[in-house]
Amino acid sequence: METQTIQIKNTTILADEVKKGSVLIEDDKIVDITRSNSSNGADEIINGEGKFLIPGLVNTHTHLSMSLMRGLADDLPLDVWLNDHIWPVEAHLEGEHCYAGALLSALEMIKSGTTTCNDMYFFMDDVARAIDKAGMRGLLCHGMIDLFDGEKRKAEYKETLRIIEKCHNTADGRIQVALGPHTPYTCSTELLNWVRKKADEKGLRIHIHVSETEKEVEDSLNDRLKRPFEYLEDIKFLGPDVTAAHSVWLSGAEISLIKDNNVKLSHNPLSNMKLASGISPVSDLLANDVCVSLGTDGAASNNNLDLFQEMKTSSLLQKVRKLDPTVLPAGKVLEMATINGATALGMEKEIGTIEVGKKADMVLVDMKAPHLTPYRNPVSHLVYSAEGADVNTVICNGQILMREREVLVMDEVEVMELAENAAEDLLSRI
Amino acid sequence: METQTIQIKNTTILADEVKKGSVLIEDDKIVDITRSNSSNGADEIINGEGKFLIPGLVNTHTHLSMSLMRGLADDLPLDVWLNDHIWPVEAHLEGEHCYAGALLSALEMIKSGTTTCNDMYFFMDDVARAIDKAGMRGLLCHGMIDLFDGEKRKAEYKETLRIIEKCHNTADGRIQVALGPHTPYTCSTELLNWVRKKADEKGLRIHIHVSETEKEVEDSLNDRLKRPFEYLEDIKFLGPDVTAAHSVWLSGAEISLIKDNNVKLSHNPLSNMKLASGISPVSDLLANDVCVSLGTDGAASNNNLDLFQEMKTSSLLQKVRKLDPTVLPAGKVLEMATINGATALGMEKEIGTIEVGKKADMVLVDMKAPHLTPYRNPVSHLVYSAEGADVNTVICNGQILMREREVLVMDEVEVMELAENAAEDLLSRI
Repeated sequence: METQTIQIKNTTILADEVKKGSVLIEDDKIVDITRSNSSNGADEIINGEGKFLIPGLVNTHTHLSMSLMRGLADDLPLDVWLNDHIWPVEAHLEGEHCYAGALLSALEMIKSGTTTCNDMYFFMDDVARAIDKAGMRGLLCHGMIDLFDGEKRKAEYKETLRIIEKCHNTADGRIQVALGPHTPYTCSTELLNWVRKKADEKGLRIHIHVSETEKEVEDSLNDRLKRPFEYLEDIKFLGPDVTAAHSVWLSGAEISLIKDNNVKLSHNPLSNMKLASGISPVSDLLANDVCVSLGTDGAASNNNLDLFQEMKTSSLLQKVRKLDPTVLPAGKVLEMATINGATALGMEKEIGTIEVGKKADMVLVDMKAPHLTPYRNPVSHLVYSAEGADVNTVICNGQILMREREVLVMDEVEVMELAENAAEDLLSRI
Repeated sequence: METQTIQIKNTTILADEVKKGSVLIEDDKIVDITRSNSSNGADEIINGEGKFLIPGLVNTHTHLSMSLMRGLADDLPLDVWLNDHIWPVEAHLEGEHCYAGALLSALEMIKSGTTTCNDMYFFMDDVARAIDKAGMRGLLCHGMIDLFDGEKRKAEYKETLRIIEKCHNTADGRIQVALGPHTPYTCSTELLNWVRKKADEKGLRIHIHVSETEKEVEDSLNDRLKRPFEYLEDIKFLGPDVTAAHSVWLSGAEISLIKDNNVKLSHNPLSNMKLASGISPVSDLLANDVCVSLGTDGAASNNNLDLFQEMKTSSLLQKVRKLDPTVLPAGKVLEMATINGATALGMEKEIGTIEVGKKADMVLVDMKAPHLTPYRNPVSHLVYSAEGADVNTVICNGQILMREREVLVMDEVEVMELAENAAEDLLSRI
C-alpha cells in the first residue's frame, strides 16, 4: 500500500513546548515537527492557522453504551438511581443497544476532541465494532461482577476470555482489551485473584472502580476491617497495570499504597459531583507523583462525555477544595487529559504527546472565537475558556475523523437516529 | 411605526410547563403562546423544530470589559492576581477599551444565550453604548471605591450621577442604571449611606460584592466586630433592592438577615472556585426562600461568560458540598438563571419567563446533537448536557440578535479585532 501523508501547517503546536509550525504525518505516525510552513507535497494539507494543535484527549474511564440512558434519571440518591432506573434498563440490554450507544458516544467524543477511551461495559465485541468504525483507539473490558456466586464467576471468566480472544489487538492495534473486575465489593477475592493471574500471564491491563463513595469504604471496613486499597494490596492485586477509577475516599496510607504500586488513577470530577460521591484529593495525589488522568464516567451520570468540562472542573474543584488558586494549573490539567491518560492505559510510548515517532492522534482546536479572544495563552484558553464545540479537526492513527466539524467516519444523523431507536426499544422492554 | 411580528413555530416551549407549540411576538412583547402551529402571517417565521425555547438567560454579576484581561493571569493567589496583573492594567483603562471589551462580551453572551446582564465597572457610558449596539438588556453601574478618602468619594458620587443622568432608562428601556458600591471594605460608611439614600430617592437598585472571601469576613470581624452582612444591616443598607454578588461566607444569622431584608444574591460558582474563594451555601439559601441567581463574574476570573457552565456547575457543586445528589435539581437551576435573575435585577414583571405580556427575550437551544441524544428530558439536557454553543437563535426585546448561530447585530470578526487591538493597546501602556 502506498504511503499516505498529511501536513498540518501554520499552526500553534503543543509539543515539548508551545511553538508555531507544521506537523507531518506519514500513515499512522508523526514523522516531523518543524517551524517551517513550506509545503512538502503531502497528500493532504490542513491549514491550522488560528488553531491550537494538541494531542488527542484520552478518556480513561467511561461506559460508552450508557449514553442511551442520558437524562433518564437525574437528581436522585445513588441507590434509587441504580435500583429503580439504571439496573432495570441494563437487565434488558442486548448487543445492538450497546453498539448503538457506543457509536453515539464515539461520535460525541470525536466532536469534543477525544481520540482514545477506556471503556468498561457489556457486549464489548459490539462496543469494539463501534470504536473500530469510528476510527478511534480504545482499551475495552467486560465489566465482571460475580456477587460472590460461583456460577456467575464462571460466566464472567468465559465472557472475558471470549472478548480477549475476539477483540484484543484488532483494528490495526487500535483496539485492545483489558480485564474489568467491577469493584472490590461486587467481585469475590477469587475473581480478583483470577484477574491478577490472567493480567500477569497475558500482559493485559486491569480497569476497576475503587473507593467511589464513603459508604463503600465504610462497608469495606465493616466487612474486611480494611479500606478498599488496603484490601487490594493484601491480596496482591495492585500493580502498575491497574487503572482505578474514581478513588475519591483515600487515606494517607492508601495514597502511599497507590504510589508504591504505581497504580494509575482516573479522576471523574463531574460524575463524582453529580452523584454526590465526594471530591478526590487529586492535588495531593499529584504532589505524591501519582499518575492521575481524567475520565467522564458514563453519560448517565455526567451527562456528557466532554473532556473539556472535566479539565476545567478538575482544576477549579481542587482550587476550591484546598482554598488555594495556585493548585492544579492549566498546563498540569492538560497533561492529565493527554499524557497521563496515555500512561494510565499503558500507551505512553505510542500516544499522549505530539512527538516524532508517536502515533498521529491529534486535535486542532479553533482559537478564533469571542470566548477565546483576546488570543494570548493557548493553554489557559483551552482549559479555562474553551468548550468541546471549539474542536475543529480530529485525527486518530493518521486518519482524519473530523475535518472542520464535519465528521468523516460516520453519518451523524444516522447515528443519532440509531441511538434514539435503540433507546426507545430498550425502554419499551421494561 | 408598523407593528412587527415574529412567530416561533413547532417548538418545545418552557412556559408554565414544558409544552409543544408556537409563540407569537409583536414588537417587543410576547402576545400569544399556543399549541397550534398554523402560520398566522407573521412578518418573520422561525422554525423551532428540534429546539427548546427558553427565556433569555440573565447574568446577574459581571464585569464585561474585563474580557480584555481573559487569560492574562491564572492560577495565582488573589493578591498577586490583583496587585501584579489586574490593577496595573486597570490603571490605564480608557473608555474605548471598556467599549471594546464590553462589545466582545456582549457578542460572547449572545452566542451562549444570555440576553440580560448586571454589569459593574468603569466608563459605563461606553459599556452602555456596547449593550445598546448589541440589542441586549443591561443594568449597569459605576463601581464606586473611595477607600475611605473624601476626595475619591466626591469623584465617585459625581461619576455615578453622570452615568445615571446619561444612561438610565435609555435604549428603549433596555438600559437601566444601578448604584454600585464596590464592597463594604473598599467603601466608607458615608458612601454606603449616600448610596442607600440615592436608591430610595430615585428608586434605583444597588449592586455590591459581599463576603467573597474568608479573609473579608475575618477583616470585618477585626475592624468592625461584625460580619459584613451584620454591618450592612446595622447601617440600614440592606433591602429588597440590593443584589449582593458572591456571598460565599455566610453565618446562619446572616442568612436570616438576607432573607428578612429580601436581599437578592448572585451566585458565581466558577469564579469562586477559580479564585479559591469558597463554596456558597446555595442550597441552604434556597431552602430559606432567598432569591439566588447566577452570574459569571468577569472573564478574567472564569474565564468565560457562559451561563450554561454556571448552571451545571452550581448544581453539581451543591450536590457534592452536601453529599446529596437530590440537592439543586435541573429545573431549579434553570430558574436561577432566568426568573431569579430577573427578580435580582427588579425585572421580574418584564422578563425571566416566557409569558404573554412579558418582553420577548428568549433563546432557542438546538437539541439535535450527539451529546443531547437521546432526546428525552429537555430541562435535564439543557442543564447537564448542553453547552453554550448549542444556542441557536437569540431574541431580545423582540429583536433577533442571532439566528441559526449568525449574529445579526454586529460583525463578529470586526468585534474580535477591535477587542484584540484594545487589549494590545492596554497592555502596551503598562
